Amino acid sequence: MSKLTHFDESGASRMVDVSGKDVTDRVATAHASVTMRPETLRLILDKKMAKGDVLEVARVAGIMAAKQTGELIPMCHPLNLDSVKIDYTNNGADTVEIVSEVRVRARTGVEMEALVAASVSALTIYDMCKSVDRAIVIGDVHLIKKSGGKSGEFTFPVKK
Amino acid sequence: MSKLTHFDESGASRMVDVSGKDVTDRVATAHASVTMRPETLRLILDKKMAKGDVLEVARVAGIMAAKQTGELIPMCHPLNLDSVKIDYTNNGADTVEIVSEVRVRARTGVEMEALVAASVSALTIYDMCKSVDRAIVIGDVHLIKKSGGKSGEFTFPVKK
Amino acid sequence: MSKLTHFDESGASRMVDVSGKDVTDRVATAHASVTMRPETLRLILDKKMAKGDVLEVARVAGIMAAKQTGELIPMCHPLNLDSVKIDYTNNGADTVEIVSEVRVRARTGVEMEALVAASVSALTIYDMCKSVDRAIVIGDVHLIKKSGGKSGEFTFPVKK
Amino acid sequence: MSKLTHFDESGASRMVDVSGKDVTDRVATAHASVTMRPETLRLILDKKMAKGDVLEVARVAGIMAAKQTGELIPMCHPLNLDSVKIDYTNNGADTVEIVSEVRVRARTGVEMEALVAASVSALTIYDMCKSVDRAIVIGDVHLIKKSGGKSGEFTFPVKK
Amino acid sequence: MSKLTHFDESGASRMVDVSGKDVTDRVATAHASVTMRPETLRLILDKKMAKGDVLEVARVAGIMAAKQTGELIPMCHPLNLDSVKIDYTNNGADTVEIVSEVRVRARTGVEMEALVAASVSALTIYDMCKSVDRAIVIGDVHLIKKSGGKSGEFTFPVKK
Amino acid sequence: MSKLTHFDESGASRMVDVSGKDVTDRVATAHASVTMRPETLRLILDKKMAKGDVLEVARVAGIMAAKQTGELIPMCHPLNLDSVKIDYTNNGADTVEIVSEVRVRARTGVEMEALVAASVSALTIYDMCKSVDRAIVIGDVHLIKKSGGKSGEFTFPVKK
Repeated sequence: MSKLTHFDESGASRMVDVSGKDVTDRVATAHASVTMRPETLRLILDKKMAKGDVLEVARVAGIMAAKQTGELIPMCHPLNLDSVKIDYTNNGADTVEIVSEVRVRARTGVEMEALVAASVSALTIYDMCKSVDRAIVIGDVHLIKKSGGKSGEFTFPVKK
Repeated sequence: MSKLTHFDESGASRMVDVSGKDVTDRVATAHASVTMRPETLRLILDKKMAKGDVLEVARVAGIMAAKQTGELIPMCHPLNLDSVKIDYTNNGADTVEIVSEVRVRARTGVEMEALVAASVSALTIYDMCKSVDRAIVIGDVHLIKKSGGKSGEFTFPVKK
Repeated sequence: MSKLTHFDESGASRMVDVSGKDVTDRVATAHASVTMRPETLRLILDKKMAKGDVLEVARVAGIMAAKQTGELIPMCHPLNLDSVKIDYTNNGADTVEIVSEVRVRARTGVEMEALVAASVSALTIYDMCKSVDRAIVIGDVHLIKKSGGKSGEFTFPVKK
Repeated sequence: MSKLTHFDESGASRMVDVSGKDVTDRVATAHASVTMRPETLRLILDKKMAKGDVLEVARVAGIMAAKQTGELIPMCHPLNLDSVKIDYTNNGADTVEIVSEVRVRARTGVEMEALVAASVSALTIYDMCKSVDRAIVIGDVHLIKKSGGKSGEFTFPVKK
Repeated sequence: MSKLTHFDESGASRMVDVSGKDVTDRVATAHASVTMRPETLRLILDKKMAKGDVLEVARVAGIMAAKQTGELIPMCHPLNLDSVKIDYTNNGADTVEIVSEVRVRARTGVEMEALVAASVSALTIYDMCKSVDRAIVIGDVHLIKKSGGKSGEFTFPVKK
Repeated sequence: MSKLTHFDESGASRMVDVSGKDVTDRVATAHASVTMRPETLRLILDKKMAKGDVLEVARVAGIMAAKQTGELIPMCHPLNLDSVKIDYTNNGADTVEIVSEVRVRARTGVEMEALVAASVSALTIYDMCKSVDRAIVIGDVHLIKKSGGKSGEFTFPVKK
């Protein structure tokens, strides 16, 4: 029977007890896309070449946010992350794709840390570009893959 | 000439100087959608009826995150928010729509605060439901509308 | 008709909109007591005289916590506090009395900031003394007085 | 000879060195009571039934605050909590009783985390109800029980 | 008579009451130097040219830290900063000079915010380079200039 | 070949992956000096004797800041510190010397935590004394020694 583990049988929210779980290597990767006007993407890519780097500021923001996940997401366990990486690609037209990867050796996984890293990186791109393009849309925020722990491996069904 | 105001002419990132701007009433609303399996949405809606409330936990998380925007988004000005609200609707099938609204009387707007509120609320729904559905997708994160300040009113071109 | 203003008519929690309220001088004072074994109080008072100061560490903690109120209490407005003070008295037997005072010029009051300052100061006394006395009890945490704003002045009915 | 371990022999405050202690399972439970006018309690209980839930917001706040204990209490060790729970009961008249429970596998205990969870949950109840009742009193904040670690088990002498 | 305003007449620390002071434009600039081996500086400068930017990461860190000043420095007033900038120069040999500038319209100044920005920027340079040079020294951390407020203008006596 | 490990081969910043490293006992000590007018030092030393203690407030600030290192320094791993200590000496003339010591059992070291503790302690001394002396200079911020981990022991070449 599937159930929402963050609630007990009386419906009270709680931080799930993971003290009985094993410490294992856990990795999670997550995705977000940031879609904008072609001129905005060109500005980001030109900036990078010339003098200022939207994506690097957004990367620092995403890495720092991953470390704050336990303070942002109410039922998340605080974790001492072992590694956080954020990579960007773009379609040359109007979209930046963000892939984050988080690693930890712990009793619980880092899916939320990877999702927070990707989301805050995307939001920072928005912030850095909103003076020229307020209609930017962030989408396709989802887990790509996670491994480690009793629930084993998960891979997102269709690549978005 | 459009430019990215968060960089100076040498390409250095900076928090834009707003000390010369007027204090005005500013409002921003933002949107995010959370798409999941129909069973997951049913679980959220049932929970709400019975004993536990995913959406209320996500609302508290979104409101609290809005207040942390200045600590998450590197070039954002810290602001004393006057009001934060988060509303949910759902399509009865597989999607929860989140609309956040933030208000402030200040020298700069609250677009990022509204976007952070919607995003963290969406991420919290993910976290609360991930034990039953890891393939949830967050999308359509964008500004709906903002008013106040010199740049005036903005409305998102097409309702997503 | 009295109602809980932190919920809207549909029962959703929210940060109350204060943008229409006047900026006025607001002051709040709050109280907490910390009751312990007489030997523990003697140790605190002796320490102070000699070499180490439980109450000063607790004072710093309380002042710093007051500034974090907006991050701890979900529906609290973040505020730029103008002043925070914490005073101690003791009954010479087994109890330290804490009185905090917080001031701000803002659209909303600082009752919660004063209560957080007193509470965290009390909890820090507990922490600093728990190696010798785990049965310390914190009590009588309440607002003493507040002034400023439309709801005017409030004084706690009976001095505890 | 009993002494305050958070000070060295010269009276300087310090975070006690726990690096030589064993990692063991540690649990702490703490208590707080929130006493109010009967009408206020009725409002909370009615709200819960109908449309809005003071206690659930306070629960989320308490769980999140437990994770911030190391940032609030100066000499507390930061810990990766394994579990946080908050339960409520009420006397049907004028008082909500809060019991928090925190678990961790670590070199030091979680008494302060449990006390912070109970206290912030109590303070949030105050905040959510202060528009109708400013004379609410928080009391009987104390450790109920703790186990694990070299100092072994502690149970609060008299049930409050 | 000169006195330390962060203590009252009884010696208790406190956040000074600024509620009676005028809101004026306030600016502060601060300095820090980071001295390293010539090879390390060359690596930073080469990196910047090629593929990675120590100074930009350090800039983001310094700007974000300025916003956290009220949480780091116990008696500092939390402020809604209007502007934060960090500039770098280097002597072409072994030293990076950091100059930060912070602006606010408020009842109290931003000297500490400017000093925190410069210090954390310097500490981040250390962190980014410590894998190749652990003997880096941060020095000459001081206020350069401040203006605004009753105490008027201050300029550091000798340019360091 | 020496390289900056906080960047990958494409120049992207990242939190270095330490998941493959061994958990060992790690200690780091760091130094900072605070130089002021002789009258200011006398005030600090007199205060200590009489009624108020600049150095104790600065010590609490430094210990608390060490715990926040992962939130201040972008690529730092969050760690559960086992011990933080801060000691002061002075030259009887115009300078306070700060030595911090941090310990942890972890996969990565605590150099940055020790440096942050010393720096924030120094900045707090500045803040507490700036009403009487704005020309205070913080200098000689450097690692004194670190041990533990694969890179082994480091001792600062010349005592500053």
